[in-house]
Amino acid sequence: MTKSVDLNADMGEGYGRWSLGDDSALLGIVSSANIACGFHAGDPDVMARTMRMAVAGDVGIGAHPGFADLHGFGRYRINLPSETLQNAIRYQIGAALAMARCAGGRVRHVKLHGALANMASEDASLARLCYTAALEVDPDLIIMVLAATAQEEAVRDLGCAYAAEIFADRAYEDNATLVDRSKPGAVIHDADRAAARMVEMVQAGAIIAESGKRIPTRIDTICLHGDTPEAVDIARAVRTSLEAAGIAVARF
Amino acid sequence: MTKSVDLNADMGEGYGRWSLGDDSALLGIVSSANIACGFHAGDPDVMARTMRMAVAGDVGIGAHPGFADLHGFGRYRINLPSETLQNAIRYQIGAALAMARCAGGRVRHVKLHGALANMASEDASLARLCYTAALEVDPDLIIMVLAATAQEEAVRDLGCAYAAEIFADRAYEDNATLVDRSKPGAVIHDADRAAARMVEMVQAGAIIAESGKRIPTRIDTICLHGDTPEAVDIARAVRTSLEAAGIAVARF
Amino acid sequence: MTKSVDLNADMGEGYGRWSLGDDSALLGIVSSANIACGFHAGDPDVMARTMRMAVAGDVGIGAHPGFADLHGFGRYRINLPSETLQNAIRYQIGAALAMARCAGGRVRHVKLHGALANMASEDASLARLCYTAALEVDPDLIIMVLAATAQEEAVRDLGCAYAAEIFADRAYEDNATLVDRSKPGAVIHDADRAAARMVEMVQAGAIIAESGKRIPTRIDTICLHGDTPEAVDIARAVRTSLEAAGIAVARF
Amino acid sequence: MTKSVDLNADMGEGYGRWSLGDDSALLGIVSSANIACGFHAGDPDVMARTMRMAVAGDVGIGAHPGFADLHGFGRYRINLPSETLQNAIRYQIGAALAMARCAGGRVRHVKLHGALANMASEDASLARLCYTAALEVDPDLIIMVLAATAQEEAVRDLGCAYAAEIFADRAYEDNATLVDRSKPGAVIHDADRAAARMVEMVQAGAIIAESGKRIPTRIDTICLHGDTPEAVDIARAVRTSLEAAGIAVARF
Repeated sequence: MTKSVDLNADMGEGYGRWSLGDDSALLGIVSSANIACGFHAGDPDVMARTMRMAVAGDVGIGAHPGFADLHGFGRYRINLPSETLQNAIRYQIGAALAMARCAGGRVRHVKLHGALANMASEDASLARLCYTAALEVDPDLIIMVLAATAQEEAVRDLGCAYAAEIFADRAYEDNATLVDRSKPGAVIHDADRAAARMVEMVQAGAIIAESGKRIPTRIDTICLHGDTPEAVDIARAVRTSLEAAGIAVARF
Repeated sequence: MTKSVDLNADMGEGYGRWSLGDDSALLGIVSSANIACGFHAGDPDVMARTMRMAVAGDVGIGAHPGFADLHGFGRYRINLPSETLQNAIRYQIGAALAMARCAGGRVRHVKLHGALANMASEDASLARLCYTAALEVDPDLIIMVLAATAQEEAVRDLGCAYAAEIFADRAYEDNATLVDRSKPGAVIHDADRAAARMVEMVQAGAIIAESGKRIPTRIDTICLHGDTPEAVDIARAVRTSLEAAGIAVARF
Repeated sequence: MTKSVDLNADMGEGYGRWSLGDDSALLGIVSSANIACGFHAGDPDVMARTMRMAVAGDVGIGAHPGFADLHGFGRYRINLPSETLQNAIRYQIGAALAMARCAGGRVRHVKLHGALANMASEDASLARLCYTAALEVDPDLIIMVLAATAQEEAVRDLGCAYAAEIFADRAYEDNATLVDRSKPGAVIHDADRAAARMVEMVQAGAIIAESGKRIPTRIDTICLHGDTPEAVDIARAVRTSLEAAGIAVARF
Repeated sequence: MTKSVDLNADMGEGYGRWSLGDDSALLGIVSSANIACGFHAGDPDVMARTMRMAVAGDVGIGAHPGFADLHGFGRYRINLPSETLQNAIRYQIGAALAMARCAGGRVRHVKLHGALANMASEDASLARLCYTAALEVDPDLIIMVLAATAQEEAVRDLGCAYAAEIFADRAYEDNATLVDRSKPGAVIHDADRAAARMVEMVQAGAIIAESGKRIPTRIDTICLHGDTPEAVDIARAVRTSLEAAGIAVARF
């Protein structure tokens, strides 16, 4: 049996006059796209455009909801009341479903963005609130979770379909959370290094932390980024190295 | 056969800390609620709360999309490119569908808000763009149109299900458009006068303009307002007068 | 020598179509107005209108900056980078100075809003960042601080002009911070009770916590609210009771 | 006497996570910078950063107010009430004054942005409203106007200090207005052509329309753009060609 893994990337993160990242290049590399829903980035035009490109490239569409903070790009933690948080998720998922339908596609998965994702990776009850809200809108959604975190704990509790993700260009703490962006070494800028560790992690079935610690985990998908200059290089290197190692790239 | 008419009102027009109008009183009077979708007013919390109240009161839920202009409450005309306008509609409709589903209801109809409604009442091709976008998201939606305007022309061209509306508290020009709010007499503040003319128009099957001119038209629903002090009084008077005249209030 | 105290209230907290509180009633009672600067509430029109009313009523104008979060009304804590926080303060103060000038007045004082005020009352270095930013724009500004908190510690360190404030309708913890709004009893709704404790605190020169604990402190001004139904009643009762007790109401 | 001309460019048009144009390159070429004020683009951080760079490069700082429409980048026409328009200008100018002061500089001039500039170039009374509002905040501001349009008419009526501007990369109609961006040829992409026509216009003391028509006018400054890929090349070419033709580049 051939081993395979999905590649995903955040996309559609422009807004109005502003664009971000090279979505069309990434769409030639990944098998799943996490598309911003207009709260932290994205707008209806950007969503429509990105989803049409994803449909054309046979890339799976995901909704990528975040905090309603365009200026902060969803990167600041905000302690919303549970109901407010759930309504924000429901709203964004609903908008994404409609935009996907009109682009000739459909939303397959959901992945939380930025500070909301960080908070959910530390707090299973918050993760559960978010995922429950999304599944109320569409019970067929696959939840994309940060492997080996409270996010994964939440989807296991819920018993819903999920895909466990690791990051190609982010360093890991020993507890499997991402090293905070404010710390040195948090983001990996070297394509070869990123590619080599992805092959290693997928083959090992484990996250390998900065310390070298191995954390065995389910790995369904690898997150690539498109918002840094070297992102597309890293993405290509990861795909090439995986395929060279006999690991097929395919949707979860 | 008993004559009947629907009563509708715009609702859910608060935002965050701010509220507007007496939605719970109006929900005891109307049979259809047009609920703001977060672009000109409303937010996910307000939508959830308003939709749950509508479900509880057995009032039909409508999506009420407008221009993305919270500060201007969607009352300024903006000449968006067609695609941008359609994407804005699709996004709002999708969000409304999700919020309604999570509130235990469903969106039955769509009604344009503010300046967008005014523009669509003068320009059938713009109206068609908006309605087409909404129907792409959900082909079962009933389009609520301003009777005898370019909005009605558009739905007839499209051949879709629609409900034709007249306003209880707004004066009419001879061409069946609303008298602009900036003109004296544009808004009717007297409950008895508003009620009497509604009975007269429904019985006549015609809009009666300020000049007295009768414009024969289909009348499926009457729009009541909730954002002025006398709104609830007018709404109650209209309902009472209609029922006294043997006209039942029921959803279209 | 007659004892005197200033009365202040937050105002200009409407936005676009939405209004909040009864500013014109409050302006007949208070001697200082804290006017929202457009980030958590307020907009240029609301600011202009409120400042013109303050000038007409001979009420001192204050800038009331908060987090850029209209939807949350500036009530959620956000950990902004220092420079971002300072720029947000500078921007709001500058806007307020201009609006006051065009309204025929000038900004005399600055008071932080909502979550930002709460954070600054617990963290003197954060308070200092905010006050420094405001004073860079206009070194003559008087900083209004929550008495006996880290805010007061910050202005003492800076050696700048300040006015120490207590709240008429908010209960105090033993460490002189406000009881969190989420706790029962945090907000006082009874006008007589609010008035009596203000007279008592001003005469004692001390904050009196829920526990009865007295925290001796400078008291230059009393904060009244205008966003609750009973606010104007409380405000009037406080003013009447102070004057009946021989304490004059006058600007700091 | 040596002929001289100012070169200006719009800058600081990023927002939060998004950047636009190569401001640091442009700041090595121009003598005046029009800095967005947070309504159509820019935010307090972007303003602070851009103004500090302008101060460091000895480039004159201008406030560049526009409509409050981040999504539309201030490019849609909105018919605001006069008072609302003036308050929006006052607010932005005040914010810009404060940000400049804190950056160690000061705002010397004001230039309207986007659709607001277009509207003001066609309607002298609207231009006058905007300029009056700005001058109320600071009477020493120099108003930058589109040469030979209603904007220039307005400043002449007001008798205020002004600088008349022509565009390096935009084609002109026979009435001296800019050819609409939606028309072919509206934007000039060739650096040499842009440079040659600027030298020709400055030497002629006239705008030269697409038709070849010469419209004699005062020319104090040339507008360069930084938001297109070829912008910096055009900017450099214009400066080089002017200097080669013996025309000095200096602030108005």
